[in-house]
Amino acid sequence: MNHLKLSTSLFFLLFSLLILNAQNGHNVWLQNKKAKTVNVVSSKESPTLNIAKNELNQGWLGTDGATITLTVKRNKSLKQDGFILNENGITANTDLGILYGTFELLRRQQTGESTSNALSIPSYDQRILNHWDNPNGSIERGYAGNSLFWRYGKDSLTVTDSDIKLWQEYARINASVGINGSVLNNVNASPMILTSGYLQRVKAINDVLRPYGIKTFLSIKFSSPSLIGGLETSDPLDKNVIKWWRDKVKEIYTLIPDFGGFLVKASSEGQPGPQDYGRSHADGANMLADALKPYNGIVMWRAFVYSPTDEDRAKQAYTEFAPLDGEFRDNVIIQVKNGPIDFQPREPFSPLFGALKETAIMPELQITQEYLGHSTHLAYLAPMWKEFLESDTYQEGEGSTVAKTTDGSLFDQKLTAIAGVANTGLDDNWTGHTFAQSNWYAFGRLAWNHELTSEQIADEWLKLTFGPFSLENKNYDVDFDEQAWNTNFLNPVKQMMLDSREAIVDYMMPLGLHHIFSPNAHYGPGPWYGPARARKDWTSLYYHQADSLGIGFDRTPTGSNATIQYEEPLRSQFNNIETCPEDVLLWFHHVPWDYKMKSGKTLWEELCYHYDTGVHKVRTFQTIWDKAKPYVDHERFYEVQTKLRRQARNAIVWKDACLLYFQEFSNTPIPYDIERPLHNLEDLKISTMKRPLDYNN
Amino acid sequence: MNHLKLSTSLFFLLFSLLILNAQNGHNVWLQNKKAKTVNVVSSKESPTLNIAKNELNQGWLGTDGATITLTVKRNKSLKQDGFILNENGITANTDLGILYGTFELLRRQQTGESTSNALSIPSYDQRILNHWDNPNGSIERGYAGNSLFWRYGKDSLTVTDSDIKLWQEYARINASVGINGSVLNNVNASPMILTSGYLQRVKAINDVLRPYGIKTFLSIKFSSPSLIGGLETSDPLDKNVIKWWRDKVKEIYTLIPDFGGFLVKASSEGQPGPQDYGRSHADGANMLADALKPYNGIVMWRAFVYSPTDEDRAKQAYTEFAPLDGEFRDNVIIQVKNGPIDFQPREPFSPLFGALKETAIMPELQITQEYLGHSTHLAYLAPMWKEFLESDTYQEGEGSTVAKTTDGSLFDQKLTAIAGVANTGLDDNWTGHTFAQSNWYAFGRLAWNHELTSEQIADEWLKLTFGPFSLENKNYDVDFDEQAWNTNFLNPVKQMMLDSREAIVDYMMPLGLHHIFSPNAHYGPGPWYGPARARKDWTSLYYHQADSLGIGFDRTPTGSNATIQYEEPLRSQFNNIETCPEDVLLWFHHVPWDYKMKSGKTLWEELCYHYDTGVHKVRTFQTIWDKAKPYVDHERFYEVQTKLRRQARNAIVWKDACLLYFQEFSNTPIPYDIERPLHNLEDLKISTMKRPLDYNN
Repeated sequence: MNHLKLSTSLFFLLFSLLILNAQNGHNVWLQNKKAKTVNVVSSKESPTLNIAKNELNQGWLGTDGATITLTVKRNKSLKQDGFILNENGITANTDLGILYGTFELLRRQQTGESTSNALSIPSYDQRILNHWDNPNGSIERGYAGNSLFWRYGKDSLTVTDSDIKLWQEYARINASVGINGSVLNNVNASPMILTSGYLQRVKAINDVLRPYGIKTFLSIKFSSPSLIGGLETSDPLDKNVIKWWRDKVKEIYTLIPDFGGFLVKASSEGQPGPQDYGRSHADGANMLADALKPYNGIVMWRAFVYSPTDEDRAKQAYTEFAPLDGEFRDNVIIQVKNGPIDFQPREPFSPLFGALKETAIMPELQITQEYLGHSTHLAYLAPMWKEFLESDTYQEGEGSTVAKTTDGSLFDQKLTAIAGVANTGLDDNWTGHTFAQSNWYAFGRLAWNHELTSEQIADEWLKLTFGPFSLENKNYDVDFDEQAWNTNFLNPVKQMMLDSREAIVDYMMPLGLHHIFSPNAHYGPGPWYGPARARKDWTSLYYHQADSLGIGFDRTPTGSNATIQYEEPLRSQFNNIETCPEDVLLWFHHVPWDYKMKSGKTLWEELCYHYDTGVHKVRTFQTIWDKAKPYVDHERFYEVQTKLRRQARNAIVWKDACLLYFQEFSNTPIPYDIERPLHNLEDLKISTMKRPLDYNN
Repeated sequence: MNHLKLSTSLFFLLFSLLILNAQNGHNVWLQNKKAKTVNVVSSKESPTLNIAKNELNQGWLGTDGATITLTVKRNKSLKQDGFILNENGITANTDLGILYGTFELLRRQQTGESTSNALSIPSYDQRILNHWDNPNGSIERGYAGNSLFWRYGKDSLTVTDSDIKLWQEYARINASVGINGSVLNNVNASPMILTSGYLQRVKAINDVLRPYGIKTFLSIKFSSPSLIGGLETSDPLDKNVIKWWRDKVKEIYTLIPDFGGFLVKASSEGQPGPQDYGRSHADGANMLADALKPYNGIVMWRAFVYSPTDEDRAKQAYTEFAPLDGEFRDNVIIQVKNGPIDFQPREPFSPLFGALKETAIMPELQITQEYLGHSTHLAYLAPMWKEFLESDTYQEGEGSTVAKTTDGSLFDQKLTAIAGVANTGLDDNWTGHTFAQSNWYAFGRLAWNHELTSEQIADEWLKLTFGPFSLENKNYDVDFDEQAWNTNFLNPVKQMMLDSREAIVDYMMPLGLHHIFSPNAHYGPGPWYGPARARKDWTSLYYHQADSLGIGFDRTPTGSNATIQYEEPLRSQFNNIETCPEDVLLWFHHVPWDYKMKSGKTLWEELCYHYDTGVHKVRTFQTIWDKAKPYVDHERFYEVQTKLRRQARNAIVWKDACLLYFQEFSNTPIPYDIERPLHNLEDLKISTMKRPLDYNN
């Protein structure tokens, strides 16, 4: 009997340890901590301030028993959401500023940064997630489970306790990095989203998000007046249409007084828009803006437009929007993807940045990895976004970076904003890949402060997510050795993150290659994709233009002349094959196979080495991660290890597919010091079509 | 019109070149050559001599217009089949000796060896292929299409012109390397083979093979008297059974006066045998031998026996046969597989060799790659067979090699023989993999002269198969540069062949590991295979014995004591972990994971490096072959390239499967300078079971 009792006790002890150490990543970078006590003083109360107090009590790692004062006081230098940290507490204009200051203070305690006399104001006023979530619960380009907001089935609109709990967690995570807006549905919008059942659910979501400072927005279908309003047209200049939208906006604001506004994908990829009625983008956007204006609502109007008839898709957003500069209302902001095509692993910046000088313009980044290996490949995206934000447009002279053309510092714009297409879903860890959490984090951090370096953000995220303060990271219950942790975990894993996006460029699309994916899934390689009946700008052949002479899309004056959309001296730099940066060479030039690169290698050899380097980088990541095992809980270790293995297999498939396919044009051996292909081209062609998500899974 | 005519002419010219250069490997090492003229003089005529003359006329590469004399004259020093080459011609005891001399002469002309004053006599009298072909046309462990001899369907026994043409080609290829016997059906024999329809077909085959000097043999089912004879028993001591066999043998010899005899798999793996009637192997074999004796027929009785109840399968053939030494008739020969288990990538030699001193014994080699990657992996097997033939049994003192214990030089035996399980089938190139032809070649060459080196045989085979004299090897129509060919093709490809078997050992079963295949197919890895209900000696767990302490099968006196079957000093050498050769270490010892190997590495590390080395060797083969492209016709180049890619993928699967599985016992990281696994163990377990032929095809 004693034995049995002992065994039972032991069982429960072990079971408790197991629970304690269970780590499914649900707490992202907000791990449970062994907090010390803190005395929080505040002159007022509010739901937002209560959240701040609660966070301080749960996560305080400063002096045990210290006193912290929260002070809400008008200070113009802090703009809307800024704050000041000092040794006695947090000062801000608003309750929300206090909450942001709280998260910053707690973060600094964990990462070891100074917490005194830090002033922080955001780079962009609106820091928005775009959820491409459909009313049936699915997510376009979502790789982490179904929607947090919508679900399939007859009770899909009933709000449950678990909905509320989840939305609270979601809001808290966003607030912790300063995100203050969520577009709750797909830009390919269902008109149903504007019907009363859905609007009731939007109100419920908004109520949960409000104390965390997050506004809700909706994507709307431009033809909603005809589709759900019973009108014969959706012409934006039609009186009845205008009225329908005013009524609908009023209905929304009656329910949700602090509703944010609309995001619109119009006249793009088959979506209806003002051009269907012979009107311009400005006509469409302004009509909606007028309806929203009385409630301080805004319109985010997407510039992602292109038609199959144009000779170069990369030129079209500029061609359509540049002439409209100055014609938009001041509560309209044009939302522009970072590159001129579509979220490729590497693109030059879209020439619209800096070119629209009298129109507010906001960058749209893609956090979800549609073109960077979904939630399987490890890709830390801050370096890609920084590369974009720091690109010099030269539109107002040297130093006119994309960041400055959008944050209000170069142009007088009433609205500043940045959007990221979310990578969240119902998966336990929200984002599918544990390291994809770092992109959610990085988007928020860069939206708040675009001057942060990729390295600093990675450093913060790793310390918060895998660091010693977490109760769930069992390896640090005792004897945490900071130096060993830095040497064996933090530094190598950070380097892996910093190298990860370039590795993907290398094994997928180096030297400016783009959009050579297998169709639809945008995961595996499909450089051969080009069926006779397909829209040519939806084929890979259109983008790589490989032939017996060379490879690449000529966008100089001898080709599509897309370079004319860039300001000098950039235009000339891109036009000249000798000065065009090699990492976008094949974006701008059709280059002979035997062209001598700066390395002395021919283009063909250089291409081969890039693909091979990509494979080897992933293998290096595998080694780094395997060595990190002692510092990571089993569940997250194993998840990432498994995905890195699959990524390594995929990288080989990419390399083999692209080299063997392009070799049919270059007609030159793959350099013999490069690891030979593992697959046959014909097998890859069949397999990546049949199983687009993962040949060789 | 002129244009059209020109085009048509050009078309036919190109088409002719295409035909000329078509190379499907059907001519194996007997490529069509641009022969010079030769005047062949012979004092007599015979079908065999006509073949010799024809070969000389087709393949003469000596002085144009030279005269060659064929002389059949009794010369005791040439034994049965030997011959002498000199500058005037060929001298031999028999017409067949002349034919063998002819092939040798023509071979030497191609390979550049001297053709004067060469005397050659075979190491073994009987040089036999065992075809595991079933009456329905399938082949057990055949990877090159269906049977050359049998086919499925109602007209399966009708002899057609294309049958005869194929059998002629088959006979010619065999004769060219001195093979003089063919067992036409599977050792797991159908009793139907002894019925009259089948015997008629055997006669037809024999008639085609006869002029090429190839005797036919049949595998028989021991219970044939009951199964097709209507008797109540097949007891070998039963009067009626004895009579049935005598009658059957008489029937056969009436049809085929030069029939060779029987091959018998009895009391083994479910096959019936004398033990079913309480009789010994000697009782069974001798009864058949007595029936065959009047016609000079022989019995090849297989020693491949083991039962599920014994503690160590490796011991059983010896245990059963050693006590019977001296009890067999002189027209019985015991056919023993090279190793004590079953044709594994590496085994120590079977202890029966040299132990049966008063009984003729013949080696059974496996040409078909049941356990060495089928016809997908490139494995040149001569080094494996040489390793076996040169193994010192010490049974008659130092230097008692397996070769000497079987070729009549150590023991006075009336019969000497060697058998190889054929790798031939209806595939255009006979053997599936072009390089598998080299094993058919090497078996014949070693059966004729077991002192040839692996290197010399590879050198010969490469020159004959890919060399400049072939009309089909289009790259040599003009300007053959011997030095370039040697440097860029012959030497590296030869090295690839010589390294190929050890590469397989490395990535499949290094250090003496054995039989850890996925079940049935014997192709992919299955170290985890061990279902509760399976016969334990048919599971992998039984063979590798991995546990938390170590890995390997203890066959020393602390274990099964199988080492007692070996003669001293071998027995002591094997018993001592410090003197046991490391390449069979885990065959004989259960070795701790942290045991220090001669390299200074632990056993676990050494195991990891062997698997990794195997993968890297295959990659080296890929590079060698890719570089050989200019020297090989498209068809064979592409076939081998494709298979090497698959082999490289398979090697990674083997490495990942074995290292990840054994790591569960060693509980130690894979050394970090080794390329990390690409697969997850759980995925491999499922996939190699589901698609046993090729996970990751």
